[in-house]
Amino acid sequence: MSDFRQRALDYHAKPTPGKIRVELSKPADSVDDLALAYSPGVAEPVREIAEDADNAYKYTGKGNLVAVISNGTAILGLGNLGPLASKPVMEGKALLFKRFAGLDAIDIEVKHRTTEEFINTVANIADTFGGINLEDIKAPECFEIEQELIKRCKIPVFHDDQHGTAIVTAAGMLNALEIQGKNIESAKIVCMGAGAAAVACMELLIKCGAQRERIYMLDRKGVIHTRREDLTEHKKLFANNTDKRTLEDVMEGADIFVGVSGPDVLPPETLALMAENPIVFACSNPDPEIKPELAHEVRKDLIMATGRSDYPNQVNNVLCFPFIFRGALDVRATAINDEMKVAAVEALRSITKEPVPEEVLAASKSDSLTFGKEYIIPKPMDPRLCERIATAVSKAAIESGVARLPESASE
Amino acid sequence: MSDFRQRALDYHAKPTPGKIRVELSKPADSVDDLALAYSPGVAEPVREIAEDADNAYKYTGKGNLVAVISNGTAILGLGNLGPLASKPVMEGKALLFKRFAGLDAIDIEVKHRTTEEFINTVANIADTFGGINLEDIKAPECFEIEQELIKRCKIPVFHDDQHGTAIVTAAGMLNALEIQGKNIESAKIVCMGAGAAAVACMELLIKCGAQRERIYMLDRKGVIHTRREDLTEHKKLFANNTDKRTLEDVMEGADIFVGVSGPDVLPPETLALMAENPIVFACSNPDPEIKPELAHEVRKDLIMATGRSDYPNQVNNVLCFPFIFRGALDVRATAINDEMKVAAVEALRSITKEPVPEEVLAASKSDSLTFGKEYIIPKPMDPRLCERIATAVSKAAIESGVARLPESASE
Repeated sequence: MSDFRQRALDYHAKPTPGKIRVELSKPADSVDDLALAYSPGVAEPVREIAEDADNAYKYTGKGNLVAVISNGTAILGLGNLGPLASKPVMEGKALLFKRFAGLDAIDIEVKHRTTEEFINTVANIADTFGGINLEDIKAPECFEIEQELIKRCKIPVFHDDQHGTAIVTAAGMLNALEIQGKNIESAKIVCMGAGAAAVACMELLIKCGAQRERIYMLDRKGVIHTRREDLTEHKKLFANNTDKRTLEDVMEGADIFVGVSGPDVLPPETLALMAENPIVFACSNPDPEIKPELAHEVRKDLIMATGRSDYPNQVNNVLCFPFIFRGALDVRATAINDEMKVAAVEALRSITKEPVPEEVLAASKSDSLTFGKEYIIPKPMDPRLCERIATAVSKAAIESGVARLPESASE
Repeated sequence: MSDFRQRALDYHAKPTPGKIRVELSKPADSVDDLALAYSPGVAEPVREIAEDADNAYKYTGKGNLVAVISNGTAILGLGNLGPLASKPVMEGKALLFKRFAGLDAIDIEVKHRTTEEFINTVANIADTFGGINLEDIKAPECFEIEQELIKRCKIPVFHDDQHGTAIVTAAGMLNALEIQGKNIESAKIVCMGAGAAAVACMELLIKCGAQRERIYMLDRKGVIHTRREDLTEHKKLFANNTDKRTLEDVMEGADIFVGVSGPDVLPPETLALMAENPIVFACSNPDPEIKPELAHEVRKDLIMATGRSDYPNQVNNVLCFPFIFRGALDVRATAINDEMKVAAVEALRSITKEPVPEEVLAASKSDSLTFGKEYIIPKPMDPRLCERIATAVSKAAIESGVARLPESASE
């Protein structure tokens, strides 16, 4: 067994299994404490909540509590391994919510027969929480699940594999375009992959100015075009009226390649076909669509991002999801809407343009980090992320009318 | 607003809402820590669990995690106030699980249309947890819900309002019978109330030796007898072939009165009808079926228990539920069966017969606590409860064949 594999298993197993636990946030030492925490004192907040449901935010942990929910149908890059196998990932996500944004998060793994049953199950328990983070649910079911739950729940529901990835990608992409002297409105975009993350990335880029007809999305069968008859609802939105059929066809003169597919699917000779000053986001993890060393050899004028922490420009969801929930919950938002997503994109972009704190340099083992080809996305350990993104997201929630508190209650 | 009411609300609201929180149990400071806790390291325990579901106990918090689940249909004595209003109670229960037995517990409030939908919802999320504590669910639905979930879940499912109450009541009752020089087998028992707790108490007393035909159960319409045609399934089990119709009729010569009904339903002149050396458990809370002062005035030969902490002999579920789950989870029991319940009864009984630790005397503001009419049930703050009950329950689980680990893994 590799050393890393053993260390990962030991980390999870010792000294106690797992990585999150429940603690008391109030005293419970004396008989008097318990009379307040439980019977008879607990009857008082019960009555208050029965009178006005909003009092749950005042007297319970609901307002700081996020459920990380999965059915284990698309765990990391490992595929459909079932709900229970997803538990370490969901507990990991809960750990990140706490570590980075101070949110209490718990994992719920759901087994179900039909998509409808999954939706019903989550909707039935939703009032327990302040927000729901859906995770590792395969496409195309994930689209229906998220849409339906957004309709049925009074709290924010956010599928991180879609929107977390999209927000970080869009922030890095807009910065890369700026550095390369290109316009998102006129950029020719190739998206390799047509799953949840691909669709969400492209939709958010469109919200940021990209032209739908200049996007070429490819699935396993090649370019998604209007004459194909095998398209799901979500692929249809990206069907291009084109006679191009292969990756080579569409990469000719492309400004942007976004890979959310698999390892080594972008050959160097295809990369060579791109327009001047190209941008490649090769997000397949752990092995990107093209190795960065190889890509830079072929194209000196390239800006490249990957999903890996050992190369510059890591597209990492942890840059987004803890803080977008922090911002949403701070103003008791009823949803995480496009305005809030775009606000998160802008906050992420702006952080990279400012001087980097010493601790971030130390943690990232870099001598310097200045806005440029090798620094278009903030680093995960940047302490500015929480305050900056959460504040921007709260503000966008208020301005777009989905906040139920007039200002941040987090301070 | 009363001082106590204000203190109870403040306890829940300040400095942060609620009373439990999530914390990390593993380091998450460095980039390396996060690589173990989340991507890419987390893939290793995922693979292990996909291969063998039991590995979830090794690499996740499942084995120490209890869900406290309610639909809010019978909150304390307050009635059906809906799922969200039950949240402070469920969080309180989670607090008690942690405080007394070191178990991580989280609350889940479930809304649903049909009983079947509640059952499906809970069954679908059950694999997340090591055990499920059902709470504040009204009768008669609670019986079907518990039975069905026990069938469908691979983990212990326990409706505390039924069995927690029954276990503490049975322990106190057997001790009281011993002191009064009576036999459970020949005791005439009156049970005022026919809800979840009443039914479970009587069933457990029967398992401890009581004769079903010597039990007289009363609901709002009086004695439950074989000629009534309005009986639910569970009441039918206690239909007595008798021509007695009223509380007065059946209290004549009764040895035991168990009240799980409402305040002041036992008039002193009815208490006077009981046999010599009677036993009265008046568990209605906060106002018992008869006030202890009044009862002792009428019957000097009485042993009395209530649900209140300010009188001797408090029937309090916290004496049982944290520890029965501790014992069940320690040996990865698949159920909490009758053998485990009886083991908990015996452990509770035996604790009262041993010298009381100094700290218990201090906490209970007593000069002495020795086995006798005013000390038939241990005190909630007794530090012996966890080890003694959990060990007895684990042992019973192993001996009755529902344990999946050969011995306690808790040490």
